[in-house]
Amino acid sequence: MTSVDVDVVGELRSVLADGVVVSDRDVVDAYRGDRAETVQAGWPIALVRATSTADVQAAMRVAAAHRIPVVPRGAGSGLAGGASAIDGCIVLSLERMLRLDIDPAGMYAVVGPGVINADVKLAAREHGLWYPPDPSSYTFCSIGGNLATNAGGLCCVKYGVTTDYVLALEVVLADGRAIRLGGRTIKDVAGYDLKRLFVGSEGTLGVITEATLRLRPLPPAACTMVATFDDIVAAGRAVSSIMAVMRPATLELMDRASVNAVENYRRMGLDTEAAATLIAQSDSGGAQSVEEIAAMERIAGEHGATFVATTDDPDEGEMFLEARRLAFASLFDLGTPLIEDVGVPIDRIAELVGGVERIAAEHDTLIATVGHAGDGNFHPFLSFDGNDPAAARRAEAAFGAVIALALELDGTITGEHGVGLVKAPYLVDQIGADVLEISRQIKAVLDPQNILNPGKFV
Amino acid sequence: MTSVDVDVVGELRSVLADGVVVSDRDVVDAYRGDRAETVQAGWPIALVRATSTADVQAAMRVAAAHRIPVVPRGAGSGLAGGASAIDGCIVLSLERMLRLDIDPAGMYAVVGPGVINADVKLAAREHGLWYPPDPSSYTFCSIGGNLATNAGGLCCVKYGVTTDYVLALEVVLADGRAIRLGGRTIKDVAGYDLKRLFVGSEGTLGVITEATLRLRPLPPAACTMVATFDDIVAAGRAVSSIMAVMRPATLELMDRASVNAVENYRRMGLDTEAAATLIAQSDSGGAQSVEEIAAMERIAGEHGATFVATTDDPDEGEMFLEARRLAFASLFDLGTPLIEDVGVPIDRIAELVGGVERIAAEHDTLIATVGHAGDGNFHPFLSFDGNDPAAARRAEAAFGAVIALALELDGTITGEHGVGLVKAPYLVDQIGADVLEISRQIKAVLDPQNILNPGKFV
Repeated sequence: MTSVDVDVVGELRSVLADGVVVSDRDVVDAYRGDRAETVQAGWPIALVRATSTADVQAAMRVAAAHRIPVVPRGAGSGLAGGASAIDGCIVLSLERMLRLDIDPAGMYAVVGPGVINADVKLAAREHGLWYPPDPSSYTFCSIGGNLATNAGGLCCVKYGVTTDYVLALEVVLADGRAIRLGGRTIKDVAGYDLKRLFVGSEGTLGVITEATLRLRPLPPAACTMVATFDDIVAAGRAVSSIMAVMRPATLELMDRASVNAVENYRRMGLDTEAAATLIAQSDSGGAQSVEEIAAMERIAGEHGATFVATTDDPDEGEMFLEARRLAFASLFDLGTPLIEDVGVPIDRIAELVGGVERIAAEHDTLIATVGHAGDGNFHPFLSFDGNDPAAARRAEAAFGAVIALALELDGTITGEHGVGLVKAPYLVDQIGADVLEISRQIKAVLDPQNILNPGKFV
Repeated sequence: MTSVDVDVVGELRSVLADGVVVSDRDVVDAYRGDRAETVQAGWPIALVRATSTADVQAAMRVAAAHRIPVVPRGAGSGLAGGASAIDGCIVLSLERMLRLDIDPAGMYAVVGPGVINADVKLAAREHGLWYPPDPSSYTFCSIGGNLATNAGGLCCVKYGVTTDYVLALEVVLADGRAIRLGGRTIKDVAGYDLKRLFVGSEGTLGVITEATLRLRPLPPAACTMVATFDDIVAAGRAVSSIMAVMRPATLELMDRASVNAVENYRRMGLDTEAAATLIAQSDSGGAQSVEEIAAMERIAGEHGATFVATTDDPDEGEMFLEARRLAFASLFDLGTPLIEDVGVPIDRIAELVGGVERIAAEHDTLIATVGHAGDGNFHPFLSFDGNDPAAARRAEAAFGAVIALALELDGTITGEHGVGLVKAPYLVDQIGADVLEISRQIKAVLDPQNILNPGKFV
């Protein structure tokens, strides 16, 4: 560390309470990155474990005064490298900001950024209420990270993504000012929609220090269908046909490789021979759910499903979803991961899943595909031997090919994980130079010194 | 007109086809304002009736070169004065941009800003699809205006507002460049959410020249409940109780004054004695809808409803909704209108509707309240004798008092109509000076000369 670094760390210590500022390399090491394993994280000069909005403001003021980059982070469960430390930065951890208050009459939660997604769900449930967004990582990802990436999940196909549940935000700006955006009303068009500009901005425009999240009544118990196909393209077509006539509560796809990974990880009796497995739910309620599941069964049959099972037992249904949720954990075990998050329009799903199979073969790389099929959002999960440079090169090429395919199909490079570092090189291909330039100008308004998570995103 | 004006008009004529540029005062007069009758509209130097994105670009380039304000407008059905002309401006009408293409497989519509909301619904329905947002003015408001204000409507309580259906936008910027935002995927977190920054920006950041709108499958036919109360506060409490346990497809409130206005306008056999009437629907489907309507009936009873009727006949249900939709038309007949659009949190509804009754009495002003009660979004409709200055002053004071009450209840000054001119003076009270300043800075990025609808909004 240079003497300049030491001064900044000293200044941070002088304005923050004992224990908030950490420079011990062993501790700091655990805060340098997220789950994007192919990204090389830098070494920060200090870790700030903020306990309050005032802590965040104090840290930002010191950073602004010395023009030190700040990398905000939640639980570190991100998959795109958005929380990767930069050499010489301050890592600003929000994990200790754990306010969690439910207002049952107002049907909202006031939540600190460090609160784990599952804890919000649990607290809401005690009042018969529900916070829908459910990334597969919901047991260990934080609301702050969910907001930073506009996280989705399994139930989004019917219930929308994180931004759809944000009533209000408290944000600390690059200069240390705290502002409040939005309010407690469901509809609000007073002023620009700045709230939604911050959601999904991956820590590049400000640091979200509190969110007021809308809660819903708990939905009726779900009925579930599982269908297997010996052709993944046919499964993709079944998804489009289901979406054309109803709004399922969940509509997930797993390909053979991901089913096998899960089955090896935890014996569940899944069909490891099927080319694709669909898991779908309806929670419209009572007889209507049963009818919708029957309609899905019919559609699956029309598209050549080799096996269909349905259940109105919520626990059994939850078990099928659990298989889907375990996919990432089991795939992480197979090798070095490189995880896609592409999305395509609803009528291009079959082309995407078929194309990914081709790309895997062409680049001799294992790609296991799981995804929120009803939203057209897929996670082709590339796995390779990290010690084999040739394998790594093939995986990188396959990664780029999948992204190129998604864009060719009028799709997106990221549906819910964020751009981070992993997808930053591809962003301009999607949004174009003019929009990227406008994005940079807007960032410059809010962060004129470019100290908030620089080098990511825009 | 000064010689400078004439030059600008001549320049517009030289770059635009015959008939696009109009300076005839009789024609222009009809394009000077919207339905905010208390606003004094200025006189433009010219009206441009654009037929294409290229027309809009050409007009913006001329305006930018001469620093002439541009007031974009759709169908002129706005209620907040957002489309009021400014002296010396160019009024840019989008009413002739009428592209309307439905892609049934992709489940989206590509729509020009001049297309009437109802025409999108109709075109979608031919393919078994649905465009939900339904302002009461849906038969005569345009998609461009809906996007400019982020319009809501009756079905938003379950299905969301305009911004929730925008997949992509084409926008012409102040300098004449055209950009595209978003795409065709349902989930997309690639880059900042600029699409949603333009939605609701009331023509101050750019001119929306095309929108790709998401369509849904048609929902099941709705069941309907109508309940009357002899106490409007009790009706408000019933609304909160319903929202706590389910998501109705519609949940509207009409007070006695609005029911009477409708009944005088068109004899429908409504109960003109009731203090408040609730109209609610469930479209969960089949038996589930019947069950939900029964639950609503129970809740209405618990809150002292004096009369409840339910029906599973969609036509009969539509008739009740029609009464609600006629409220504005019938209230416009009563005198000079001044229309609120306040929103409050779901648990403050009873306080708002009770407070509005008090304010009406205190200011000796007729206030008829209708509203999207399930969203907490209400339209207290003030009506006064425009020829009586004292009555106008009382109405203005009452208007301010309702806004102050909404803010006191943690509410918003506008839920779906927009800020426009009518609510511009109150905006800072809601969002604060810092956020207003940031909004201005963001506008300056996109419109450095402040030529896009200046003087409104920010």
